Amino acid sequence: MITRLCIIGVGLIGGSLARSLKKQAAVDWVIGASRNQANLDRARELGVIDAYTSNVADAVKNADMVVLAAPLGANRALLETILPALSSFTVLTDVGSAKVSVIEDVRTVFGELPGNFVPGHPIAGTEESGVEASFDTLFETKTVILTPLPETNLVAKDKVASMWSAVGAQVVEMTPEDHDEVLSATSHLPHMLAYSLVNTLGAMDKRCEIFKYAAGGFHDFTRIASSDPTMWQDICLANREHLLRALSDFRIDLDRLSNAIEAGDRDFLKSVFAQAKNLRDGYI
Amino acid sequence: MITRLCIIGVGLIGGSLARSLKKQAAVDWVIGASRNQANLDRARELGVIDAYTSNVADAVKNADMVVLAAPLGANRALLETILPALSSFTVLTDVGSAKVSVIEDVRTVFGELPGNFVPGHPIAGTEESGVEASFDTLFETKTVILTPLPETNLVAKDKVASMWSAVGAQVVEMTPEDHDEVLSATSHLPHMLAYSLVNTLGAMDKRCEIFKYAAGGFHDFTRIASSDPTMWQDICLANREHLLRALSDFRIDLDRLSNAIEAGDRDFLKSVFAQAKNLRDGYI
Repeated sequence: MITRLCIIGVGLIGGSLARSLKKQAAVDWVIGASRNQANLDRARELGVIDAYTSNVADAVKNADMVVLAAPLGANRALLETILPALSSFTVLTDVGSAKVSVIEDVRTVFGELPGNFVPGHPIAGTEESGVEASFDTLFETKTVILTPLPETNLVAKDKVASMWSAVGAQVVEMTPEDHDEVLSATSHLPHMLAYSLVNTLGAMDKRCEIFKYAAGGFHDFTRIASSDPTMWQDICLANREHLLRALSDFRIDLDRLSNAIEAGDRDFLKSVFAQAKNLRDGYI
Repeated sequence: MITRLCIIGVGLIGGSLARSLKKQAAVDWVIGASRNQANLDRARELGVIDAYTSNVADAVKNADMVVLAAPLGANRALLETILPALSSFTVLTDVGSAKVSVIEDVRTVFGELPGNFVPGHPIAGTEESGVEASFDTLFETKTVILTPLPETNLVAKDKVASMWSAVGAQVVEMTPEDHDEVLSATSHLPHMLAYSLVNTLGAMDKRCEIFKYAAGGFHDFTRIASSDPTMWQDICLANREHLLRALSDFRIDLDRLSNAIEAGDRDFLKSVFAQAKNLRDGYI
Protein backbone atom coordinates (compact mmCIF):
# COMPACT_ATOMS: atom_id res chain seq x y z
CA MET A 1 0.00 0.00 0.00
CA ILE A 2 1.26 3.43 -0.94
CA THR A 3 0.24 6.20 1.46
CA ARG A 4 1.19 9.28 -0.47
CA LEU A 5 2.02 8.88 -4.16
CA CYS A 6 3.55 11.71 -6.17
CA ILE A 7 3.29 11.47 -9.94
CA ILE A 8 5.41 13.90 -11.92
CA GLY A 9 3.90 14.12 -15.39
CA VAL A 10 0.25 13.05 -15.29
CA GLY A 11 -0.09 11.81 -18.87
CA LEU A 12 -1.04 8.47 -20.40
CA ILE A 13 1.35 6.44 -18.24
CA GLY A 14 1.35 8.51 -15.04
CA GLY A 15 -2.41 8.96 -15.21
CA SER A 16 -3.07 5.30 -15.92
CA LEU A 17 -0.86 4.28 -12.99
CA ALA A 18 -2.77 6.59 -10.63
CA ARG A 19 -6.14 5.37 -11.90
CA SER A 20 -5.11 1.71 -11.67
CA LEU A 21 -3.72 2.00 -8.14
CA LYS A 22 -6.87 3.78 -7.00
CA LYS A 23 -9.05 1.13 -8.59
CA GLN A 24 -7.11 -1.55 -6.71
CA ALA A 25 -7.23 0.49 -3.49
CA ALA A 26 -3.45 0.27 -3.46
CA VAL A 27 -2.91 3.96 -2.79
CA ASP A 28 -4.34 6.38 -0.24
CA TRP A 29 -3.68 9.74 -1.82
CA VAL A 30 -2.16 10.93 -5.10
CA ILE A 31 -0.60 14.29 -5.82
CA GLY A 32 0.24 15.25 -9.39
CA ALA A 33 2.85 17.69 -10.56
CA SER A 34 3.73 18.95 -14.02
CA ARG A 35 4.26 22.10 -16.03
CA ASN A 36 0.93 21.72 -17.78
CA GLN A 37 -1.69 23.43 -15.63
CA ALA A 38 -4.61 22.55 -17.91
CA ASN A 39 -3.66 18.87 -17.85
CA LEU A 40 -3.43 18.93 -14.04
CA ASP A 41 -6.84 20.60 -13.80
CA ARG A 42 -8.29 17.91 -16.02
CA ALA A 43 -6.56 15.14 -14.04
CA ARG A 44 -8.13 16.51 -10.86
CA GLU A 45 -11.56 16.80 -12.48
CA LEU A 46 -11.32 13.20 -13.68
CA GLY A 47 -10.38 12.06 -10.18
CA VAL A 48 -7.09 10.66 -11.43
CA ILE A 49 -5.25 12.67 -8.76
CA ASP A 50 -6.44 14.05 -5.42
CA ALA A 51 -4.37 17.23 -5.50
CA TYR A 52 -1.76 18.93 -7.59
CA THR A 53 0.85 21.61 -7.55
CA SER A 54 3.06 23.19 -10.15
CA ASN A 55 5.79 23.29 -7.49
CA VAL A 56 7.46 19.93 -8.02
CA ALA A 57 9.61 20.23 -4.88
CA ASP A 58 6.47 20.69 -2.77
CA ALA A 59 4.84 17.71 -4.47
CA VAL A 60 7.49 15.19 -3.43
CA LYS A 61 7.54 16.26 0.24
CA ASN A 62 6.38 13.44 2.51
CA ALA A 63 5.61 11.16 -0.43
CA ASP A 64 6.50 7.52 0.14
CA MET A 65 6.61 6.94 -3.63
CA VAL A 66 7.60 9.38 -6.37
CA VAL A 67 7.11 8.34 -10.01
CA LEU A 68 8.91 10.32 -12.71
CA ALA A 69 6.60 10.11 -15.72
CA ALA A 70 7.56 13.17 -17.76
CA PRO A 71 9.39 12.94 -21.12
CA LEU A 72 12.99 11.75 -20.62
CA GLY A 73 14.45 15.12 -21.58
CA ALA A 74 12.79 16.76 -18.57
CA ASN A 75 14.36 14.42 -15.99
CA ARG A 76 17.59 16.29 -15.33
CA ALA A 77 15.88 19.55 -14.41
CA LEU A 78 13.15 17.75 -12.46
CA LEU A 79 15.71 15.82 -10.44
CA GLU A 80 17.59 19.01 -9.63
CA THR A 81 14.35 20.57 -8.41
CA ILE A 82 13.22 17.69 -6.23
CA LEU A 83 16.61 16.72 -4.78
CA PRO A 84 16.51 19.13 -1.79
CA ALA A 85 12.93 18.11 -0.95
CA LEU A 86 13.28 14.31 -1.20
CA SER A 87 13.44 12.52 2.12
CA SER A 88 15.56 9.42 2.54
CA PHE A 89 12.48 7.23 3.06
CA THR A 90 10.92 8.23 -0.26
CA VAL A 91 11.20 5.63 -3.00
CA LEU A 92 11.94 7.19 -6.40
CA THR A 93 11.17 5.38 -9.63
CA ASP A 94 10.54 6.30 -13.25
CA VAL A 95 8.76 4.97 -16.34
CA GLY A 96 11.20 6.04 -19.06
CA SER A 97 11.63 4.09 -22.31
CA ALA A 98 15.43 4.27 -22.00
CA LYS A 99 17.15 3.38 -18.74
CA VAL A 100 20.86 4.19 -18.97
CA SER A 101 20.18 7.90 -19.54
CA VAL A 102 17.90 8.36 -16.54
CA ILE A 103 20.38 6.51 -14.34
CA GLU A 104 23.11 8.87 -15.53
CA ASP A 105 20.82 11.83 -14.83
CA VAL A 106 20.23 10.61 -11.27
CA ARG A 107 23.92 9.91 -10.71
CA THR A 108 24.89 13.34 -11.99
CA VAL A 109 22.28 15.27 -10.02
CA PHE A 110 22.58 13.28 -6.76
CA GLY A 111 26.36 12.86 -6.98
CA GLU A 112 25.84 9.12 -6.47
CA LEU A 113 23.12 6.56 -7.08
CA PRO A 114 20.79 6.67 -4.09
CA GLY A 115 19.61 3.27 -2.82
CA ASN A 116 15.96 4.28 -2.98
CA PHE A 117 16.04 4.94 -6.73
CA VAL A 118 14.58 2.06 -8.76
CA PRO A 119 14.64 2.57 -12.55
CA GLY A 120 11.62 1.06 -14.26
CA HIS A 121 9.77 0.85 -17.57
CA PRO A 122 6.25 -0.43 -18.11
CA ILE A 123 6.02 -1.96 -21.60
CA ALA A 124 2.58 -0.55 -22.16
CA GLY A 125 0.97 2.39 -23.87
CA THR A 126 -1.14 3.50 -26.77
CA GLU A 127 -0.43 6.04 -29.50
CA GLU A 128 -2.37 8.63 -27.52
CA SER A 129 -1.05 10.94 -24.83
CA GLY A 130 -2.26 13.13 -21.99
CA VAL A 131 -4.39 12.32 -18.98
CA GLU A 132 -7.56 12.08 -21.10
CA ALA A 133 -6.06 9.00 -22.75
CA SER A 134 -5.24 7.30 -19.45
CA PHE A 135 -7.26 4.30 -18.24
CA ASP A 136 -7.25 1.96 -15.29
CA THR A 137 -6.49 -1.32 -17.07
CA LEU A 138 -3.49 -0.22 -19.15
CA PHE A 139 -0.99 -2.34 -17.23
CA GLU A 140 -3.03 -5.52 -16.85
CA THR A 141 -1.01 -8.50 -18.17
CA LYS A 142 1.72 -6.13 -19.36
CA THR A 143 5.41 -6.46 -18.53
CA VAL A 144 7.23 -3.94 -16.36
CA ILE A 145 11.00 -4.07 -16.61
CA LEU A 146 12.95 -2.92 -13.54
CA THR A 147 16.66 -2.31 -13.99
CA PRO A 148 17.98 -2.23 -10.41
CA LEU A 149 21.64 -1.42 -9.79
CA PRO A 150 24.13 -2.73 -7.25
CA GLU A 151 23.33 0.37 -5.18
CA THR A 152 19.57 -0.28 -5.22
CA ASN A 153 17.98 -1.00 -1.86
CA LEU A 154 16.00 -4.26 -1.91
CA VAL A 155 13.13 -2.85 0.11
CA ALA A 156 12.77 0.03 -2.36
CA LYS A 157 12.87 -2.39 -5.27
CA ASP A 158 10.21 -4.59 -3.68
CA LYS A 159 7.98 -1.59 -3.06
CA VAL A 160 8.16 -0.60 -6.74
CA ALA A 161 7.61 -4.20 -7.85
CA SER A 162 4.57 -4.45 -5.55
CA MET A 163 3.13 -1.26 -7.00
CA TRP A 164 3.26 -2.70 -10.52
CA SER A 165 2.02 -6.11 -9.43
CA ALA A 166 -0.96 -4.40 -7.78
CA VAL A 167 -2.06 -3.01 -11.15
CA GLY A 168 -1.81 -6.39 -12.85
CA ALA A 169 1.62 -6.18 -14.45
CA GLN A 170 4.28 -8.87 -14.53
CA VAL A 171 7.56 -7.52 -13.18
CA VAL A 172 10.90 -8.67 -14.58
CA GLU A 173 14.46 -7.49 -14.05
CA MET A 174 17.17 -6.71 -16.56
CA THR A 175 20.36 -4.68 -16.65
CA PRO A 176 19.88 -1.11 -17.90
CA GLU A 177 22.14 -1.84 -20.89
CA ASP A 178 20.19 -4.95 -21.89
CA HIS A 179 16.93 -3.04 -21.51
CA ASP A 180 18.09 -0.29 -23.82
CA GLU A 181 19.38 -2.72 -26.41
CA VAL A 182 16.18 -4.80 -26.41
CA LEU A 183 13.90 -1.76 -26.52
CA SER A 184 15.88 -0.15 -29.34
CA ALA A 185 14.90 -3.17 -31.42
CA THR A 186 11.30 -3.81 -30.38
CA SER A 187 10.08 -0.29 -29.89
CA HIS A 188 12.44 2.50 -30.85
CA LEU A 189 13.38 1.21 -34.31
CA PRO A 190 9.74 0.43 -35.30
CA HIS A 191 8.72 3.94 -34.25
CA MET A 192 11.40 5.41 -36.51
CA LEU A 193 10.16 3.28 -39.42
CA ALA A 194 6.55 4.24 -38.87
CA TYR A 195 7.30 7.96 -38.57
CA SER A 196 9.52 7.84 -41.66
CA LEU A 197 7.01 5.86 -43.68
CA VAL A 198 4.19 8.31 -43.04
CA ASN A 199 6.43 11.22 -44.03
CA THR A 200 7.65 9.43 -47.15
CA LEU A 201 4.07 8.86 -48.24
CA GLY A 202 3.07 12.38 -47.28
CA ALA A 203 5.66 13.78 -49.68
CA MET A 204 4.45 11.74 -52.66
CA ASP A 205 2.46 13.35 -55.48
CA LYS A 206 -0.39 10.93 -54.94
CA ARG A 207 -0.54 11.43 -51.17
CA CYS A 208 -4.30 12.11 -51.20
CA GLU A 209 -5.13 8.84 -52.94
CA ILE A 210 -2.47 7.08 -50.88
CA PHE A 211 -4.01 7.99 -47.54
CA LYS A 212 -7.54 7.58 -48.92
CA TYR A 213 -6.98 3.99 -50.05
CA ALA A 214 -4.79 2.89 -47.17
CA ALA A 215 -6.31 -0.20 -45.57
CA GLY A 216 -6.24 -1.89 -42.19
CA GLY A 217 -2.68 -3.17 -42.53
CA PHE A 218 -1.43 0.36 -43.08
CA HIS A 219 -3.43 1.74 -40.16
CA ASP A 220 -1.97 -0.86 -37.82
CA PHE A 221 1.50 -0.41 -39.23
CA THR A 222 1.51 3.35 -38.75
CA ARG A 223 -0.47 3.52 -35.50
CA ILE A 224 2.71 4.23 -33.53
CA ALA A 225 3.46 7.22 -35.79
CA SER A 226 0.69 9.04 -33.92
CA SER A 227 2.75 8.91 -30.71
CA ASP A 228 3.84 12.05 -28.88
CA PRO A 229 6.68 13.82 -30.79
CA THR A 230 8.36 15.32 -27.71
CA MET A 231 8.49 11.98 -25.96
CA TRP A 232 10.04 10.35 -29.02
CA GLN A 233 12.53 13.11 -29.64
CA ASP A 234 13.81 12.44 -26.12
CA ILE A 235 13.82 8.66 -26.48
CA CYS A 236 15.86 8.83 -29.71
CA LEU A 237 18.53 10.89 -28.07
CA ALA A 238 18.48 9.02 -24.76
CA ASN A 239 19.04 5.68 -26.50
CA ARG A 240 21.02 7.03 -29.42
CA GLU A 241 23.81 4.44 -29.67
CA HIS A 242 21.59 1.39 -29.60
CA LEU A 243 19.05 2.96 -31.91
CA LEU A 244 21.68 3.94 -34.47
CA ARG A 245 23.02 0.38 -34.46
CA ALA A 246 19.52 -1.04 -34.94
CA LEU A 247 18.85 1.43 -37.76
CA SER A 248 22.11 0.45 -39.41
CA ASP A 249 21.29 -3.28 -39.15
CA PHE A 250 17.85 -2.63 -40.56
CA ARG A 251 19.22 -0.64 -43.49
CA ILE A 252 21.56 -3.43 -44.46
CA ASP A 253 18.65 -5.89 -44.52
CA LEU A 254 16.40 -3.49 -46.42
CA ASP A 255 19.14 -2.84 -48.99
CA ARG A 256 19.53 -6.58 -49.53
CA LEU A 257 15.81 -6.83 -50.10
CA SER A 258 15.82 -3.87 -52.51
CA ASN A 259 18.69 -5.39 -54.44
CA ALA A 260 16.87 -8.71 -54.72
CA ILE A 261 13.74 -6.96 -56.02
CA GLU A 262 15.84 -5.07 -58.56
CA ALA A 263 17.60 -8.27 -59.63
CA GLY A 264 14.32 -10.20 -59.77
CA ASP A 265 15.75 -12.81 -57.40
CA ARG A 266 12.58 -14.80 -56.69
CA ASP A 267 14.25 -17.40 -54.49
CA PHE A 268 15.89 -14.82 -52.25
CA LEU A 269 12.65 -12.88 -51.85
CA LYS A 270 10.64 -15.95 -50.97
CA SER A 271 13.24 -17.12 -48.45
CA VAL A 272 13.39 -13.69 -46.81
CA PHE A 273 9.60 -13.47 -46.51
CA ALA A 274 9.29 -17.06 -45.31
CA GLN A 275 12.00 -16.50 -42.70
CA ALA A 276 10.22 -13.42 -41.35
CA LYS A 277 6.86 -15.18 -41.32
CA ASN A 278 8.32 -18.17 -39.48
CA LEU A 279 10.04 -15.95 -36.95
CA ARG A 280 6.93 -13.91 -36.27
CA ASP A 281 4.51 -16.82 -36.22
CA GLY A 282 6.90 -18.74 -33.98
CA TYR A 283 7.67 -16.05 -31.44
CA ILE A 284 4.45 -14.07 -31.23
CA MET B 1 -26.87 -12.41 -59.69
CA ILE B 2 -24.10 -14.75 -60.78
CA THR B 3 -25.29 -18.12 -62.05
CA ARG B 4 -22.07 -20.05 -62.23
CA LEU B 5 -19.02 -18.59 -60.52
CA CYS B 6 -15.56 -20.05 -61.03
CA ILE B 7 -12.91 -19.15 -58.48
CA ILE B 8 -9.34 -20.02 -59.40
CA GLY B 9 -7.37 -20.09 -56.15
CA VAL B 10 -9.71 -20.68 -53.22
CA GLY B 11 -7.66 -18.95 -50.50
CA LEU B 12 -8.36 -16.07 -48.16
CA ILE B 13 -9.66 -13.73 -50.88
CA GLY B 14 -11.24 -16.22 -53.25
CA GLY B 15 -12.79 -18.16 -50.38
CA SER B 16 -14.10 -15.03 -48.68
CA LEU B 17 -15.65 -13.82 -51.93
CA ALA B 18 -17.44 -17.16 -52.42
CA ARG B 19 -18.65 -17.20 -48.81
CA SER B 20 -19.84 -13.59 -48.96
CA LEU B 21 -21.70 -14.01 -52.25
CA LYS B 22 -23.41 -17.14 -50.94
CA LYS B 23 -24.39 -15.34 -47.75
CA GLN B 24 -25.96 -12.56 -49.81
CA ALA B 25 -27.64 -15.10 -52.12
CA ALA B 26 -25.85 -13.34 -54.97
CA VAL B 27 -24.55 -16.53 -56.55
CA ASP B 28 -26.19 -19.81 -57.57
CA TRP B 29 -23.29 -22.18 -57.80
CA VAL B 30 -19.55 -21.93 -57.19
CA ILE B 31 -16.83 -24.11 -58.62
CA GLY B 32 -13.30 -23.86 -57.28
CA ALA B 33 -10.08 -24.70 -59.05
CA SER B 34 -6.51 -24.73 -57.86
CA ARG B 35 -3.40 -26.87 -57.69
CA ASN B 36 -3.89 -27.54 -54.02
CA GLN B 37 -6.12 -30.60 -53.70
CA ALA B 38 -6.20 -30.54 -49.89
CA ASN B 39 -7.30 -26.90 -49.87
CA LEU B 40 -10.07 -27.66 -52.40
CA ASP B 41 -11.26 -30.60 -50.30
CA ARG B 42 -11.41 -28.35 -47.27
CA ALA B 43 -13.21 -25.60 -49.21
CA ARG B 44 -15.82 -28.13 -50.27
CA GLU B 45 -16.18 -29.47 -46.71
CA LEU B 46 -16.66 -25.93 -45.41
CA GLY B 47 -19.33 -25.26 -48.03
CA VAL B 48 -17.31 -22.40 -49.48
CA ILE B 49 -17.59 -23.97 -52.94
CA ASP B 50 -20.14 -26.39 -54.38
CA ALA B 51 -17.74 -28.35 -56.56
CA TYR B 52 -14.14 -28.33 -57.63
CA THR B 53 -11.78 -29.64 -60.20
CA SER B 54 -8.04 -29.58 -60.61
CA ASN B 55 -8.63 -29.10 -64.33
CA VAL B 56 -8.82 -25.33 -64.59
CA ALA B 57 -9.99 -25.37 -68.22
CA ASP B 58 -12.97 -27.52 -67.22
CA ALA B 59 -13.72 -25.19 -64.31
CA VAL B 60 -14.24 -22.09 -66.44
CA LYS B 61 -16.55 -23.78 -68.97
CA ASN B 62 -20.04 -22.24 -68.87
CA ALA B 63 -19.13 -19.91 -66.01
CA ASP B 64 -20.62 -16.44 -66.30
CA MET B 65 -17.94 -15.08 -63.94
CA VAL B 66 -14.34 -16.27 -63.52
CA VAL B 67 -12.26 -14.79 -60.69
CA LEU B 68 -8.48 -15.23 -60.84
CA ALA B 69 -7.43 -15.34 -57.18
CA ALA B 70 -4.14 -17.23 -57.30
CA PRO B 71 -0.77 -15.57 -56.59
CA LEU B 72 0.16 -13.14 -59.38
CA GLY B 73 3.01 -15.32 -60.60
CA ALA B 74 0.58 -18.10 -61.52
CA ASN B 75 -1.56 -15.93 -63.81
CA ARG B 76 0.33 -16.38 -67.05
CA ALA B 77 0.12 -20.18 -67.01
CA LEU B 78 -3.48 -20.13 -65.76
CA LEU B 79 -4.53 -17.79 -68.56
CA GLU B 80 -2.88 -20.02 -71.15
CA THR B 81 -4.79 -22.99 -69.74
CA ILE B 82 -8.21 -21.34 -69.63
CA LEU B 83 -8.01 -19.39 -72.90
CA PRO B 84 -9.34 -22.18 -75.13
CA ALA B 85 -12.18 -22.94 -72.70
CA LEU B 86 -13.41 -19.39 -72.05
CA SER B 87 -16.60 -18.43 -73.84
CA SER B 88 -17.12 -14.89 -75.07
CA PHE B 89 -19.96 -14.33 -72.58
CA THR B 90 -17.82 -15.16 -69.56
CA VAL B 91 -16.66 -12.16 -67.55
CA LEU B 92 -13.07 -12.53 -66.37
CA THR B 93 -11.74 -10.56 -63.40
CA ASP B 94 -8.93 -10.87 -60.91
CA VAL B 95 -8.00 -9.77 -57.38
CA GLY B 96 -4.28 -9.14 -57.80
CA SER B 97 -2.40 -6.55 -55.73
CA ALA B 98 -0.65 -5.22 -58.85
CA LYS B 99 -2.64 -4.41 -61.95
CA VAL B 100 -0.28 -3.55 -64.82
CA SER B 101 1.35 -6.98 -64.73
CA VAL B 102 -1.88 -8.97 -64.91
CA ILE B 103 -3.08 -6.78 -67.77
CA GLU B 104 0.16 -7.50 -69.60
CA ASP B 105 -0.28 -11.21 -68.91
CA VAL B 106 -3.78 -11.12 -70.39
CA ARG B 107 -2.66 -9.09 -73.41
CA THR B 108 0.21 -11.47 -74.08
CA VAL B 109 -1.79 -14.67 -73.70
CA PHE B 110 -4.93 -13.47 -75.51
CA GLY B 111 -3.05 -11.49 -78.15
CA GLU B 112 -5.27 -8.49 -77.30
CA LEU B 113 -7.22 -7.21 -74.32
CA PRO B 114 -10.62 -8.91 -74.40
CA GLY B 115 -13.56 -6.65 -73.58
CA ASN B 116 -14.85 -9.01 -70.91
CA PHE B 117 -11.69 -8.79 -68.82
CA VAL B 118 -12.08 -6.41 -65.84
CA PRO B 119 -8.95 -6.01 -63.69
CA GLY B 120 -9.78 -5.57 -60.01
CA HIS B 121 -8.26 -5.44 -56.53
CA PRO B 122 -10.14 -5.66 -53.24
CA ILE B 123 -8.23 -3.65 -50.62
CA ALA B 124 -8.93 -6.21 -47.94
CA GLY B 125 -7.21 -9.10 -46.29
CA THR B 126 -5.62 -10.37 -43.14
CA GLU B 127 -2.15 -11.76 -42.53
CA GLU B 128 -3.55 -15.27 -42.80
CA SER B 129 -3.98 -17.32 -45.93
CA GLY B 130 -5.83 -20.36 -47.22
CA VAL B 131 -9.52 -21.17 -47.27
CA GLU B 132 -9.59 -21.81 -43.51
CA ALA B 133 -8.85 -18.12 -42.99
CA SER B 134 -11.66 -16.95 -45.29
CA PHE B 135 -14.83 -15.39 -43.87
CA ASP B 136 -18.04 -13.91 -45.19
CA THR B 137 -17.65 -10.32 -43.97
CA LEU B 138 -14.12 -9.63 -45.22
CA PHE B 139 -15.21 -7.12 -47.86
CA GLU B 140 -17.82 -5.20 -45.87
CA THR B 141 -17.04 -1.47 -45.97
CA LYS B 142 -13.79 -2.19 -47.83
CA THR B 143 -12.73 -0.56 -51.08
CA VAL B 144 -12.43 -2.49 -54.33
CA ILE B 145 -10.41 -0.78 -57.04
CA LEU B 146 -11.30 -1.65 -60.62
CA THR B 147 -8.86 -0.56 -63.32
CA PRO B 148 -10.89 -0.83 -66.52
CA LEU B 149 -9.20 -0.19 -69.87
CA PRO B 150 -10.43 1.47 -73.05
CA GLU B 151 -11.10 -2.05 -74.36
CA THR B 152 -13.23 -3.01 -71.33
CA ASN B 153 -16.88 -3.74 -72.02
CA LEU B 154 -19.17 -1.66 -69.80
CA VAL B 155 -21.57 -4.52 -69.15
CA ALA B 156 -18.69 -6.69 -67.98
CA LYS B 157 -17.42 -3.89 -65.75
CA ASP B 158 -20.87 -3.37 -64.23
CA LYS B 159 -21.21 -7.07 -63.56
CA VAL B 160 -17.91 -7.10 -61.62
CA ALA B 161 -18.82 -3.91 -59.77
CA SER B 162 -22.19 -5.42 -58.80
CA MET B 163 -20.50 -8.53 -57.49
CA TRP B 164 -18.36 -6.47 -55.13
CA SER B 165 -21.22 -4.18 -54.12
CA ALA B 166 -23.25 -7.27 -53.25
CA VAL B 167 -20.66 -8.24 -50.61
CA GLY B 168 -20.63 -4.77 -49.06
CA ALA B 169 -17.62 -3.21 -50.75
CA GLN B 170 -17.34 0.28 -52.17
CA VAL B 171 -16.17 0.14 -55.79
CA VAL B 172 -13.90 2.84 -57.23
CA GLU B 173 -12.03 3.14 -60.51
CA MET B 174 -8.46 4.10 -61.20
CA THR B 175 -5.96 3.63 -64.00
CA PRO B 176 -3.76 0.53 -63.63
CA GLU B 177 -0.67 2.74 -63.36
CA ASP B 178 -2.17 4.90 -60.61
CA HIS B 179 -3.30 1.79 -58.76
CA ASP B 180 0.18 0.31 -58.82
CA GLU B 181 1.78 3.55 -57.70
CA VAL B 182 -0.68 4.06 -54.82
CA LEU B 183 -0.47 0.45 -53.66
CA SER B 184 3.33 0.44 -53.78
CA ALA B 185 3.17 3.15 -51.12
CA THR B 186 0.30 2.01 -48.88
CA SER B 187 0.78 -1.72 -48.99
CA HIS B 188 3.85 -3.02 -50.79
CA LEU B 189 6.41 -0.75 -49.11
CA PRO B 190 5.03 -1.36 -45.58
CA HIS B 191 5.16 -5.10 -46.17
CA MET B 192 8.83 -4.83 -47.14
CA LEU B 193 9.56 -2.85 -43.96
CA ALA B 194 7.72 -5.32 -41.75
CA TYR B 195 9.41 -8.36 -43.29
CA SER B 196 12.82 -6.69 -43.06
CA LEU B 197 12.29 -5.56 -39.48
CA VAL B 198 11.40 -9.03 -38.26
CA ASN B 199 14.47 -10.47 -39.96
CA THR B 200 16.72 -7.72 -38.60
CA LEU B 201 15.54 -8.47 -35.08
CA GLY B 202 15.74 -12.21 -35.66
CA ALA B 203 19.45 -11.86 -36.45
CA MET B 204 20.26 -9.95 -33.26
CA ASP B 205 22.09 -11.59 -30.36
CA LYS B 206 19.26 -10.75 -27.98
CA ARG B 207 16.50 -12.04 -30.29
CA CYS B 208 14.95 -14.20 -27.56
CA GLU B 209 14.50 -11.27 -25.18
CA ILE B 210 13.53 -9.04 -28.10
CA PHE B 211 10.61 -11.18 -29.17
CA LYS B 212 9.71 -11.98 -25.56
CA TYR B 213 9.38 -8.34 -24.52
CA ALA B 214 7.82 -7.06 -27.74
CA ALA B 215 4.57 -5.29 -26.91
CA GLY B 216 1.33 -4.46 -28.68
CA GLY B 217 2.84 -1.80 -30.90
CA PHE B 218 5.35 -4.27 -32.25
CA HIS B 219 2.69 -6.93 -32.83
CA ASP B 220 0.58 -4.50 -34.84
CA PHE B 221 3.58 -3.18 -36.70
CA THR B 222 4.75 -6.63 -37.79
CA ARG B 223 1.36 -8.28 -38.31
CA ILE B 224 1.74 -8.00 -42.08
CA ALA B 225 5.08 -9.87 -41.90
CA SER B 226 3.02 -13.02 -41.33
CA SER B 227 1.54 -12.72 -44.84
CA ASP B 228 2.00 -15.43 -47.44
CA PRO B 229 5.60 -15.45 -48.80
CA THR B 230 4.72 -16.72 -52.28
CA MET B 231 2.08 -14.07 -52.76
CA TRP B 232 4.50 -11.34 -51.72
CA GLN B 233 7.36 -12.63 -53.81
CA ASP B 234 5.04 -12.26 -56.81
CA ILE B 235 3.74 -8.82 -55.81
CA CYS B 236 7.30 -7.46 -55.41
CA LEU B 237 8.23 -8.52 -58.90
CA ALA B 238 4.92 -7.58 -60.49
CA ASN B 239 5.17 -4.03 -59.14
CA ARG B 240 8.93 -3.79 -59.14
CA GLU B 241 9.44 -0.30 -60.57
CA HIS B 242 7.01 1.49 -58.28
CA LEU B 243 8.15 -0.48 -55.27
CA LEU B 244 11.82 0.28 -55.91
CA ARG B 245 11.01 3.98 -56.19
CA ALA B 246 9.04 3.91 -52.94
CA LEU B 247 11.87 2.02 -51.21
CA SER B 248 14.35 4.58 -52.46
CA ASP B 249 12.21 7.50 -51.23
CA PHE B 250 11.84 5.80 -47.88
CA ARG B 251 15.58 5.22 -47.53
CA ILE B 252 16.32 8.86 -48.15
CA ASP B 253 13.90 9.85 -45.38
CA LEU B 254 15.20 7.19 -42.99
CA ASP B 255 18.80 8.29 -43.65
CA ARG B 256 17.86 11.87 -42.82
CA LEU B 257 16.33 10.68 -39.59
CA SER B 258 19.39 8.56 -38.73
CA ASN B 259 21.67 11.51 -39.41
CA ALA B 260 19.59 13.75 -37.15
CA ILE B 261 19.75 11.18 -34.34
CA GLU B 262 23.51 10.91 -34.79
CA ALA B 263 23.88 14.70 -34.79
CA GLY B 264 21.56 15.08 -31.80
CA ASP B 265 19.37 17.47 -33.80
CA ARG B 266 16.42 17.78 -31.40
CA ASP B 267 14.50 20.29 -33.48
CA PHE B 268 14.69 18.25 -36.65
CA LEU B 269 13.57 15.10 -34.83
CA LYS B 270 10.63 16.78 -33.20
CA SER B 271 9.52 18.38 -36.47
CA VAL B 272 9.76 15.07 -38.32
CA PHE B 273 7.73 13.24 -35.66
CA ALA B 274 5.18 16.04 -35.41
CA GLN B 275 4.77 16.12 -39.19
CA ALA B 276 4.14 12.38 -39.31
CA LYS B 277 1.71 12.53 -36.40
CA ASN B 278 -0.21 15.40 -38.00
CA LEU B 279 -0.35 13.63 -41.34
CA ARG B 280 -1.58 10.40 -39.81
CA ASP B 281 -4.04 11.97 -37.39
CA GLY B 282 -5.33 14.19 -40.18
CA TYR B 283 -5.76 11.59 -42.90
CA ILE B 284 -6.71 8.50 -40.98
